[in-house]
Amino acid sequence: MNFSSKLLENAVNEFSRLPGIGQKTALRLVLHLLNQPADDVTKFSDALTKLKSEICYCAVCHNIADEAICEICNAPKRDKGLICVVEDTRDVMAIENTNQFNGVYHVLGGLISPMDGVGPSDLSIDSLINRLRENDVHEIILALSATMEGDTTIFYLYKKLKDFNVQISTIARGISFGGELEYVDEVTLGRSIVTRVPYERSIA
Amino acid sequence: MNFSSKLLENAVNEFSRLPGIGQKTALRLVLHLLNQPADDVTKFSDALTKLKSEICYCAVCHNIADEAICEICNAPKRDKGLICVVEDTRDVMAIENTNQFNGVYHVLGGLISPMDGVGPSDLSIDSLINRLRENDVHEIILALSATMEGDTTIFYLYKKLKDFNVQISTIARGISFGGELEYVDEVTLGRSIVTRVPYERSIA
Repeated sequence: MNFSSKLLENAVNEFSRLPGIGQKTALRLVLHLLNQPADDVTKFSDALTKLKSEICYCAVCHNIADEAICEICNAPKRDKGLICVVEDTRDVMAIENTNQFNGVYHVLGGLISPMDGVGPSDLSIDSLINRLRENDVHEIILALSATMEGDTTIFYLYKKLKDFNVQISTIARGISFGGELEYVDEVTLGRSIVTRVPYERSIA
Repeated sequence: MNFSSKLLENAVNEFSRLPGIGQKTALRLVLHLLNQPADDVTKFSDALTKLKSEICYCAVCHNIADEAICEICNAPKRDKGLICVVEDTRDVMAIENTNQFNGVYHVLGGLISPMDGVGPSDLSIDSLINRLRENDVHEIILALSATMEGDTTIFYLYKKLKDFNVQISTIARGISFGGELEYVDEVTLGRSIVTRVPYERSIA
């Protein structure tokens, strides 16, 4: 693209480095910002600079936080003996939105993926084991994505954790609520028949 | 959404105010930035602040520029007697990309749109008339979108400009190159028959 201004070109290039944003979208966003009051643009760029410089990661669960220990780990009503292991902060938000979980989290910061060069040592697995050693944990829920990387990570964690006196569970897999059988893929449907649950349990 | 951090929430809110970006996309972009080196994030926010504070608009054509007069208006090889009137800087870029135009531009900064509260006085129409008065202009090309607002603006400009000794033209409308007749809407197809051109002219 031929930009009429170096400043414009810089801003567009910075925007188009974000995932899923090409040059045309970037230009549209930049021109939108250019039409906003100067205060709004300053607020926008301040929010980003501050985010990067002041953000903390909870020392216990590694979730994004404003303090050294996050709100969830600090909450007295939460069951500290029930740890839900997730990939990143988005998964914490997703599970929090369900209002079905009253334990604490452990954010791995990724999944084991040799293709992307992510090994077990890149994830916060050691600190999970320390939490198990130092606290009275009765159950660990492995709430990872149902992908190759997720399954690999679950298997690795299971091998690491199975010698501790703690129950290890994974979240249930099966057809979604509202899902119609004819559109469900055969692997999911097949597994959901094999791992069927007594009706009394499913309405508990 | 339940954010685990106020800083994160602020950054996501700022991003989600951009057009076409919702909360989920904003969160994805912010988490991506959070994983980048601090330098990159600083570069990103600096590019935006600088853009807003240092950008100029060309005193002649009102296009976005780094100097008081833009490169196109300054270029000695450009035909200053041929002015192409466009809506905004994106249209200048689009026409420059064609390499088919050797005149100069005039950026209106919008189109007349009573629905959005944009009247003729909000656009740089007076300065266009001044350019006509003070320079030796032989042709004005009205290259505006083929929408209701574009047509209204073209009609308004035509009424304002027709008493000057200058040829007023609009860009050709018709079917696109590569367009298949059966998929062309009937208004475009009908007009392209009415405004047909002799074959010798169409290959000139």
